[in-house]
Amino acid sequence: MFFKFLPREFNFFDLFEKQAGYCLDAAIYFKELVTKGSVNEEAIQKIRDIEHQGDEAAHTIIDQLNKTFITPFDREDILSLAKELDDVTDMINTIISRMMVYKLTGVNRNLVQFASVIEDSVRALTCAVKGMRNSKHLKSVSESCVEINRLENLGDTMRDEMLAELFEREKDPIAVIKWKEIYQDAETVLDICEDVAHVVGSILVKQA
Amino acid sequence: MFFKFLPREFNFFDLFEKQAGYCLDAAIYFKELVTKGSVNEEAIQKIRDIEHQGDEAAHTIIDQLNKTFITPFDREDILSLAKELDDVTDMINTIISRMMVYKLTGVNRNLVQFASVIEDSVRALTCAVKGMRNSKHLKSVSESCVEINRLENLGDTMRDEMLAELFEREKDPIAVIKWKEIYQDAETVLDICEDVAHVVGSILVKQA
Amino acid sequence: MFFKFLPREFNFFDLFEKQAGYCLDAAIYFKELVTKGSVNEEAIQKIRDIEHQGDEAAHTIIDQLNKTFITPFDREDILSLAKELDDVTDMINTIISRMMVYKLTGVNRNLVQFASVIEDSVRALTCAVKGMRNSKHLKSVSESCVEINRLENLGDTMRDEMLAELFEREKDPIAVIKWKEIYQDAETVLDICEDVAHVVGSILVKQA
Repeated sequence: MFFKFLPREFNFFDLFEKQAGYCLDAAIYFKELVTKGSVNEEAIQKIRDIEHQGDEAAHTIIDQLNKTFITPFDREDILSLAKELDDVTDMINTIISRMMVYKLTGVNRNLVQFASVIEDSVRALTCAVKGMRNSKHLKSVSESCVEINRLENLGDTMRDEMLAELFEREKDPIAVIKWKEIYQDAETVLDICEDVAHVVGSILVKQA
Repeated sequence: MFFKFLPREFNFFDLFEKQAGYCLDAAIYFKELVTKGSVNEEAIQKIRDIEHQGDEAAHTIIDQLNKTFITPFDREDILSLAKELDDVTDMINTIISRMMVYKLTGVNRNLVQFASVIEDSVRALTCAVKGMRNSKHLKSVSESCVEINRLENLGDTMRDEMLAELFEREKDPIAVIKWKEIYQDAETVLDICEDVAHVVGSILVKQA
Repeated sequence: MFFKFLPREFNFFDLFEKQAGYCLDAAIYFKELVTKGSVNEEAIQKIRDIEHQGDEAAHTIIDQLNKTFITPFDREDILSLAKELDDVTDMINTIISRMMVYKLTGVNRNLVQFASVIEDSVRALTCAVKGMRNSKHLKSVSESCVEINRLENLGDTMRDEMLAELFEREKDPIAVIKWKEIYQDAETVLDICEDVAHVVGSILVKQA
């Protein structure tokens, strides 16, 4: 009888997994795109579709939160998690839009390397979100969070090295403006993944 | 007797309307200014005065919140709404200051167009805030929020087109640096309006 | 007996003082560094160590918060205070890293002036945090917060004047890109100090 009143709350895990899935779709597509080096109208449409689906998943979570009295964890944490996951897809979408606006075509090895680290981080993030469902997976969730932190630190170093190289080598100020923003945006994706890991971590601590 | 104990809470609606009014003053003045294309010390003083009045309205709300036990809606939402409305006026003030610092004089058609969309969005925002007072206006509040969202999407497209044109046409990197920041700031005003709409929306959902 | 159950909560004041101490270490070191005008690998290591210690202090606060039922003030405010203090050290670390990446060596008088204002603001912030422990110090806490606000306004003016001068005088767009970011970052440190002052202020109002 008790469970009959609470079916909804378990739904949050499904919804978060779905939302994290769109983050991963975006990360995988971003890597594919920069590896081919061809951002075009079709690519813009595709990433916007993914972002739109992620947006809808976030709205469903917030709607459900407003209608649900008992939640599996703190309301504040549910809101933060939905918002941060949304920011991951949003930021990837922003980068691809900017590349189109700045007409940045051709393969940039640095960006391919960044896209690869972003994909790894979002993959770890997906594992962390999936693992929240079951307290048996506590250890694997915690390992995913450690990995996300490691990749954020790596991203900081990568961005600094790439910027140093850019300012050293690139003599066209317009190209400096464009690539500086893209590298900083790419690192921001890893920052947001770390924010997700922090929210997941704080949820686990409170439930321990 | 009951109402005698609660006069204060109704005050929040007055305060928010007042604060939203300063947002609209700022938006109208911004459009006027860029249409004439003459940012000067006097303009800086005028927008700072508006921003200062908005600031005081926000402080009054927060002070009152700290002294009031029963509030018409969630304390968190009251804080968010006061903060986001403050950010609208702040951002418009920032743009005008930057134009002065960068010595951007003369009429820029793109910016006039942006200022016009900003004024429309802040006008819709004022309607949404006013409508919160009465549950009969629920439909019109919700329409205002939809309009704010539409204008934010329009702003994204406008900014991307203006940046693409800027990078295409402008050969002076210093001018690119200046205008890139101004266009991005202008779009940020519309983002903040959308954040206000989200707060208003979540307040309405909880009261439904 | 009562006190035996609550020893932990008093600990928060010690922890916040410790964390504010790392902010001050960072601000003092930043001023020392820009006065000498020599950012090198050793400096990067030193500021990273300070930032790392500040990070650990923040984590200890959050861990303790999650384990403590009764806290000396709102949980939300404890979280905000820990986060904002962390942001102070983080931002100073970011500036020094950027100076290294951009190879900005030599003494820049503007930056020395900014570093001096930052040190003053962080010193006032340390006083405010220390004073929270005892309601007798309420007046001195409030004076420190007023001083932090004054320095933030001063910082706004300084940044605007320095940017105006930069765009006026510097003809190399790459140098403009670099110094524009550094000046804006320096002003951001003062913004974050003001955010700390706001949190401290709101804690005091609630306890009054």
